[in-house]
Parts: sequence; C-alpha cells; structure tokens
Amino acid sequence: MNDIPGEAVLPDGRGGPHVFVADASAPVLDDGDHHHLARVLRLRDGDPITVGDGAGRWGRAVFRSSDEPELTAEVVVVAEAESTVAVGFALIKGGRPELVVQKLTELGVDRILPLTAERSVVRWDDTKASAQVERFRRVAREAAMQSRRVWLPQIDEVSAPGEVVVAHGLAVAEHGGDPIDGSVRALLVGPEGGWTTDELVDHRTVSLGQTVLRAETAAIVAGTLLTAIRDGRVSPPAGPTA
Amino acid sequence: MNDIPGEAVLPDGRGGPHVFVADASAPVLDDGDHHHLARVLRLRDGDPITVGDGAGRWGRAVFRSSDEPELTAEVVVVAEAESTVAVGFALIKGGRPELVVQKLTELGVDRILPLTAERSVVRWDDTKASAQVERFRRVAREAAMQSRRVWLPQIDEVSAPGEVVVAHGLAVAEHGGDPIDGSVRALLVGPEGGWTTDELVDHRTVSLGQTVLRAETAAIVAGTLLTAIRDGRVSPPAGPTA
Repeated sequence: MNDIPGEAVLPDGRGGPHVFVADASAPVLDDGDHHHLARVLRLRDGDPITVGDGAGRWGRAVFRSSDEPELTAEVVVVAEAESTVAVGFALIKGGRPELVVQKLTELGVDRILPLTAERSVVRWDDTKASAQVERFRRVAREAAMQSRRVWLPQIDEVSAPGEVVVAHGLAVAEHGGDPIDGSVRALLVGPEGGWTTDELVDHRTVSLGQTVLRAETAAIVAGTLLTAIRDGRVSPPAGPTA
Repeated sequence: MNDIPGEAVLPDGRGGPHVFVADASAPVLDDGDHHHLARVLRLRDGDPITVGDGAGRWGRAVFRSSDEPELTAEVVVVAEAESTVAVGFALIKGGRPELVVQKLTELGVDRILPLTAERSVVRWDDTKASAQVERFRRVAREAAMQSRRVWLPQIDEVSAPGEVVVAHGLAVAEHGGDPIDGSVRALLVGPEGGWTTDELVDHRTVSLGQTVLRAETAAIVAGTLLTAIRDGRVSPPAGPTA
C-alpha cells in the first residue's frame, strides 16, 4: 500500500540516508544515529533523510542538527510482504557470523537463525549466546539502514537445527541435495564438515551448487537465491513450484 | 572428458585437500603448500589429496611428508567449460576487494576484473596496482584450492570499465536496469555511488534487485546469479535466452 501517489514504494537511497525510529509518524533519533548522521555522514539542517520503524512504515523527512527530524510527507505504509524467506547458518570456530548477518540483511532475507551444529560447533554458554545475538541485531540494524530496508529482519535466538520451527518450506543445504525451488522458504546452512546424519533426519536437502563453498559463502548464496526467487528475478529451472 | 570410469568429474572435497601444481601429471608441491598440508592441515604420509594445474587437469594423489606426492590414478582431463562468466568490480576506498575476489573464486566465476570508477575511485599508481593484482591472484589461488576448483579464475589487470573487452554478453549493474538473463556473461559492478553517465555509455544495464547493496555485496550477488544461471540451477523468469 502506498499513500502518496507517484511516491517510490521503497526507499532507494535517493532520498538520503535511512534511519530507524520507534514511530515513523513522530520520528525521534537516538543519540548514536543522530551522531552518525551529523558527524559521520555530515548532514546539515534541511538535508533529506528517510525514517522507518523497521516494521514496514516509513516516510521522508528532513534532518535537523539540533532537533528531531521533520516529516515532509505523509507516512507511507508498506503492505506486508506476501511471502518471507529465512536463512539459518551454523556458528563455526573462526567464522565471521557478523559478515553473514550483514549480507543476509542487505539481501532482504526476512529471518536469520544462528544455529549450533554438531560439527565445528561453537560452544557458548547462555550469557555469551545472548550477547552475540544482541550483537547480531545491532549489525542487522546498521545493515538495514545502510541498505534502506523498511523491514528489519528477525534474528532468532541461537538454537539447534532440530529445534527450528517455520511455517513451511524448511530445508537444509547439503551437497547432492535437490535443486533449490520456490517451495523452499527457509534454508539451513551447515558447517563446512556438513550436517550429521542425525541433524538431517526428517529434513529435505537442497544443493547450493557443485562448488565447495565456505560456510559463510554458502549462507550468502542461500540468501541470494531465496530472495531472487521470492522476488521473481530468477526461477527454478522447472518453473516456480510455489 | 573423464578418463576414469566411475570417477567424480570434479574434486568434491571427499578426496582430501586440493592443491595447485605446475604439472598435474608429475606433481611437485611448492614449499608454502607443502607446509600448509603438513603443518596446518596436519596430513600424514599416505593421506589422500587432489592435485590440479588450475587449467582443467587434475588427479588423485597421496601426500608424502618428505617427498613429492604420488599420483594414485591417471590424471583426469576436464573438458573446457562450455561457457564462462565474468564479474568486474570497482575498487573503492575502504572496500574489501580481497573478500570479493575470494567469494567470486569460490562461486566458480571464470574471470574477475578489478576496475577503477570515476566515483569512489581508488587512485593507485602502476606499482601499487600491480602489487594488488598479485595479491588478488594469491587470494584466488588459496580460495580455488579451498573450494577444489580445477580452473583458476583469470584475474585481469586493473582497468577502466570502458577498456573492458569480452567476447559477448557485457552489461553493467545499475539500479532500474533490465532483469538479469542468460545473455549476460560479463557483469560490471560499480561503486555505491553508481557509474557516471559516461561510464554507462553503450553498455546494457542490468538490475541486481530492488535492495540497495554495498558494492562488495553486489559483486557477490552478480557472481552467484551468473554462475547459477550458467550451471542451469536457476533460470531468468522468461526462461533461458542464451
């Protein structure tokens, strides 16, 4: 839904930097974001920005160096996406999980699930896991602002692959699995050593191609293909199945 | 072409680490690779490896800690790929060009072109540019071993987008361009500020989707989609056009 005739449906970066606020109708910048806009991006009074609540509502505004931004138009309400895609990825020793979260957010993945795996598992206690998830959420927020997303991705708590619950279309990435198709809505990517047989039980397996990918690359490929299929930019070879 | 009945056409990582040598028929490891296999991967006498020349010829061998590896089978000659894909990416200040080269190599991109762009250009003199290209080639070699590629990607010298010569299918990535399709064989990705009008002259433009991507992410997305279309894992929405 788009309340402003002729207005872009989504921020495309031409309307200035994008920043998240609690209420897009009455935007209040937090101190860190205000500092970033004023000091890092060097915005001046009157420069255009877009503000969004990360849940689909956003609008155009102008930056004020000493005050809150002023909206310049009605807030646009974006309709809920028709379908969402999710990517899970195994936390591995020496991995770059922040890179994965950043890239999946930029790509437009709707839900990101950090996973433990039996092979190459990172052993975190609850305190450490909570701190990491908080860190992932900050990374996702920054990446979503940078890429002008109106929806913040959901970042799940750390879980085992067997605990993952999705509405439909769950599959795990595995060498030699089926080709990816439109029925896959949530894809779990394992460590480089692969999933164990126990972890694969009852899961459909999907291949990400013939090359041997690092775990972090496999997660980015999963996000690229799922969002491209969701958005109709490419199709599975046999045509869409969902 | 595959000389050994029942043998895998490509190394898949189950035959041990993959290492590049000058001649796959008479493999001699360089000191750095020997050290890596022995000290980092902790291989022992008799452990399986695969050796390849990076130009399509590879074979299975066993590691010898004090000597050259011994081939365990006839060298397999891999037929030349039917079609190749290329990705160019603009060098930008604060960018992570090594990350881009690593990921494009893992994805199976055949040719990688580091580019200068009018916006956000990195100003390198010839000495610095040569050193960087050498660095990119080392990164690609490591990534190709890690991902068990039998073809090393070609890494071009740094050039301007207008100087790029490809046999066919050249396009530049640009917001609002055509959807990607099978006729695109070489895609040039610009800096976050985009290409200038001059740089776009005479080039077909192709869109990588509606989201605003960092330059490094856009290059990885280009590589993911071009290789997936090349390998028949996905199709453009209207079906293959090449």
